[in-house]
Amino acid sequence: MTPLTELIQQIDSKQLWEREVDLQRNDYLVEKGNINTRFFFVVEGSLRIFVLDSNEENTIRFGYKGNLIAALDSFLTEKPTELYIQALKKTRLKSVTKIKLKVLIESSTANTKLWISILESFAFQQMERERDLLTSSPIERYHRVLQRSPQLFQAIPDKYIASYLRMSPETFSRIKKS
Amino acid sequence: MTPLTELIQQIDSKQLWEREVDLQRNDYLVEKGNINTRFFFVVEGSLRIFVLDSNEENTIRFGYKGNLIAALDSFLTEKPTELYIQALKKTRLKSVTKIKLKVLIESSTANTKLWISILESFAFQQMERERDLLTSSPIERYHRVLQRSPQLFQAIPDKYIASYLRMSPETFSRIKKS
Repeated sequence: MTPLTELIQQIDSKQLWEREVDLQRNDYLVEKGNINTRFFFVVEGSLRIFVLDSNEENTIRFGYKGNLIAALDSFLTEKPTELYIQALKKTRLKSVTKIKLKVLIESSTANTKLWISILESFAFQQMERERDLLTSSPIERYHRVLQRSPQLFQAIPDKYIASYLRMSPETFSRIKKS
Repeated sequence: MTPLTELIQQIDSKQLWEREVDLQRNDYLVEKGNINTRFFFVVEGSLRIFVLDSNEENTIRFGYKGNLIAALDSFLTEKPTELYIQALKKTRLKSVTKIKLKVLIESSTANTKLWISILESFAFQQMERERDLLTSSPIERYHRVLQRSPQLFQAIPDKYIASYLRMSPETFSRIKKS
């Protein structure tokens, strides 16, 4: 069991989830400028996070069924987010507030350690992502991410994976076939 | 006082530093493949962290006097690092082992919270860095980093800042003058 799964189980057992949200495909859960400090659990469906760079949508992360997703910049700073979180299909979420999550994390040494593991794992993933972005070969980027997150290639439409991998849908499709 | 400064003070007062290292300009503190789980404090001098991508050195971080630097991937996973850490001038460091740091962090609730703050702040910085790398305009990248880390522009030679900003030294020099 990963630290994240363990955290989700804790939130389950303490019944801290609230406010179910239903989204249609292309609906936004969060838009740039929103302050949103909740963690969302994906009950059903999938989402992507993107940032805008001169009107280009750069996909930077995904959320699938059974995972957590958040506007992490806003969660951490309590300031407006730079992120857009958009449903890729019909999606159902439930959420927990930052305050309740904080109380849970501080309620025991074991839970605090769990949170540290989650943060350390996120820090490591972000370093991997930085290395992806600095990898000039599209094929190498593809294989790095395929090895790290094979489930991505099952759950997410190709054009968004191509955006995440910083390549055209045509290049993505060519590499995928080869 | 930042959480990182507070952690440094704690390590000071508990006298956990050991193994001073002296480096000449261009010497390596860490090379790809090393397992190195220490945190280093820069007593004097400066360093850069880079990764190799098909023989190109991509600078991804800096360490200056009074700051901490580490092969964070190796620190977190205890596996070989992907990073090179190189002195940019004559540099003196002292270090603390992961084990001693861990004992310190777990020695009090206050220290555990300090570590959580440091990890959260690192996570946020890595998100900012991801956004830098996805910003196509060199001028915009320059201003994002200038605003976030003005001290960088004092402490580090231009050619390494240019590499960090993903632009040629010529473009960097032109933007700096304008």
